[in-house]
Amino acid sequence: MQSRYEKGLALIAEIDRSQAERIISGLADIAPDFAQYLVEFAFGDIYSRLGLDLKSRQIATMAALGALPQLKVHINFALELGCSREEIVEIIMQMAVYAGFPAALNGFAAAKEVFAERAQRGTASCRINAAMPASGAASPS
Amino acid sequence: MQSRYEKGLALIAEIDRSQAERIISGLADIAPDFAQYLVEFAFGDIYSRLGLDLKSRQIATMAALGALPQLKVHINFALELGCSREEIVEIIMQMAVYAGFPAALNGFAAAKEVFAERAQRGTASCRINAAMPASGAASPS
Amino acid sequence: MQSRYEKGLALIAEIDRSQAERIISGLADIAPDFAQYLVEFAFGDIYSRLGLDLKSRQIATMAALGALPQLKVHINFALELGCSREEIVEIIMQMAVYAGFPAALNGFAAAKEVFAERAQRGTASCRINAAMPASGAASPS
Amino acid sequence: MQSRYEKGLALIAEIDRSQAERIISGLADIAPDFAQYLVEFAFGDIYSRLGLDLKSRQIATMAALGALPQLKVHINFALELGCSREEIVEIIMQMAVYAGFPAALNGFAAAKEVFAERAQRGTASCRINAAMPASGAASPS
Amino acid sequence: MQSRYEKGLALIAEIDRSQAERIISGLADIAPDFAQYLVEFAFGDIYSRLGLDLKSRQIATMAALGALPQLKVHINFALELGCSREEIVEIIMQMAVYAGFPAALNGFAAAKEVFAERAQRGTASCRINAAMPASGAASPS
Amino acid sequence: MQSRYEKGLALIAEIDRSQAERIISGLADIAPDFAQYLVEFAFGDIYSRLGLDLKSRQIATMAALGALPQLKVHINFALELGCSREEIVEIIMQMAVYAGFPAALNGFAAAKEVFAERAQRGTASCRINAAMPASGAASPS
Repeated sequence: MQSRYEKGLALIAEIDRSQAERIISGLADIAPDFAQYLVEFAFGDIYSRLGLDLKSRQIATMAALGALPQLKVHINFALELGCSREEIVEIIMQMAVYAGFPAALNGFAAAKEVFAERAQRGTASCRINAAMPASGAASPS
Repeated sequence: MQSRYEKGLALIAEIDRSQAERIISGLADIAPDFAQYLVEFAFGDIYSRLGLDLKSRQIATMAALGALPQLKVHINFALELGCSREEIVEIIMQMAVYAGFPAALNGFAAAKEVFAERAQRGTASCRINAAMPASGAASPS
Repeated sequence: MQSRYEKGLALIAEIDRSQAERIISGLADIAPDFAQYLVEFAFGDIYSRLGLDLKSRQIATMAALGALPQLKVHINFALELGCSREEIVEIIMQMAVYAGFPAALNGFAAAKEVFAERAQRGTASCRINAAMPASGAASPS
Repeated sequence: MQSRYEKGLALIAEIDRSQAERIISGLADIAPDFAQYLVEFAFGDIYSRLGLDLKSRQIATMAALGALPQLKVHINFALELGCSREEIVEIIMQMAVYAGFPAALNGFAAAKEVFAERAQRGTASCRINAAMPASGAASPS
Repeated sequence: MQSRYEKGLALIAEIDRSQAERIISGLADIAPDFAQYLVEFAFGDIYSRLGLDLKSRQIATMAALGALPQLKVHINFALELGCSREEIVEIIMQMAVYAGFPAALNGFAAAKEVFAERAQRGTASCRINAAMPASGAASPS
Repeated sequence: MQSRYEKGLALIAEIDRSQAERIISGLADIAPDFAQYLVEFAFGDIYSRLGLDLKSRQIATMAALGALPQLKVHINFALELGCSREEIVEIIMQMAVYAGFPAALNGFAAAKEVFAERAQRGTASCRINAAMPASGAASPS
């Protein structure tokens, strides 16, 4: 049976391995246990759950992050999970209604940076078909 | 041509007319203009936009509301827009990852109240097929 | 020379003695020192400062409180300091732009309760002319 | 009749055209519709309303922004609308009471940057008389 | 070997079994898995960690909760873990410095309710010696 | 008798004089009165109070700051007050439970910067024994 850690890592690998590895290695010299909890709980327990597809999970995460620096990471995740740039723009635009115009302006600044970084790296938007349920994405086979 | 207000009202009518009317009439004696902005801007301008389906918009809204009292209204909206109870539970569960366990516990308390109120009123979960894009929902034709 | 506490109390007496007394007596059996800090620092030090009139200070406070329960107290203070109901409605309406529609809806709910409570108590809106600078208001002479 | 967009633009031109143009052009390649909503709703609908003068509106906005990056823009707006540096310092100082000392320290850091940038550009503080009501400011004719 | 769930439950039992059981049973009909995550991750993984004693962990939690409804639960936990009422009052008082006076006033309102409920139930303050490290508290054997 | 300002300064000198002097001098040209309130109220009134030891006060402050830039200053204060790096890591890790993983990730980023800056300056972790109660720390004698 797959451990929670393996399950989380497998899911991360399907979303955006390089971003996740950067976060995990950034924790290595200060709180390696925390990197483990992140993989196990956030990805192995929660993100891997059936009942809500990965793209919808990522929409929820982006919407909730507001002005936090992690928004950039999750815009990247969303693009990898099949969100179009148009959808990301809509999610940020809607922040104006529920969190105010400044939150949305911060969101657009983050999105512009992500889009520019990806253009420079030559990364197109979506990579995998994320419309499938999380179950499919996380199943070990 | 449909006005922004008519467009917003039409969309609201498709989502959850009774909840929306309660909010609008609650503003009538203190800030009737604000009820108009709510219909025009939040629903006529933003929610009616193409590019993101209504169910995804509602997921974003719920995720962003956290502990605010408006969460109950938007859980109702989400149920009307085709979210299953299971999906709502998943969206709230995910708050634990991005906003902490207390935010999720508050979310579950709100969801329990909504589910109980609907059980009492005899309202089942979904009413319309909200998988269609907002464009369809908002088109005046 | 007036102590910071006397200066704070004198200013509170000019704004809304009964509300302030309710807060201070509510702290008496749990944290009486905190009531003292509230009078000394919030009112004796900050609110009494020259350089910004009391009504503008109260506008800033209301705008910053958002969904916190203290908003009701400060709507009362603002009415006592000469804000009209129309001005209070405008300040809350503007929250929609900078903090989102839910924040404004919470604000209107608070304002409705305050207006109703005052109607029941027979308290009209403004009592003193708060357009004068804080210096005037706070000076003991 | 002036459109909401024209009304918003006219008001922005009276406050701080260059700052506003920078924000609008920053949105041009990612969310041009959002720039339109900002002009139409925030400035054409809300800021243009009668019932609260522009300077008071700007005080409310600054007070509510707290640590958000948009605070710098709105300190500039406030200076253009006739707020003195002393008044801006007072508004930030008051944040300590209602949002804590860290919020105020962040506010002072923002204000120092704005004051320094304006000194370098040779921009004095106030430019127009913003004491007049928004009605006057926004009226087209 | 003790499972994460058993480890979490054992720790909860040492802190405040009745409060914890109320939360867990409140989740039973809406999100039983979430109750499991709460026990496993919050208590089995994090609270059980060596390196910070339980009383300090509880101080951190209370300080971070601010105006959230969960503050009452954690004031109870803190009392069970050996915090005196005086210490709890100090922690809340300090919120005024870092989160503003309204946050502290909300905190005192919560503390008053907890102290009154415990007086009614006849529960004195501390029950166990929580100065010992979490390791001791959580060790099964 | 020691004034509130002297009392606050004496306490600051025991914690981390250089950090505090940087903050105070940063306010000198924009809001010197605010530097005085910071010393008098935050340190002279609150931090100097009996009833909670300084290390516990610092834990509460760090836990409450979340993603605010002031976290770095208070990680330095905590190290000076006798918190080990391990304890600081634990306090940040626990933010994941009560404020979400992004808050903790921001906290670790801040801690890494502080630890690196101190390594460069050759500052070891703790300097004084902060386990003693605030009374002892603040008493002038």
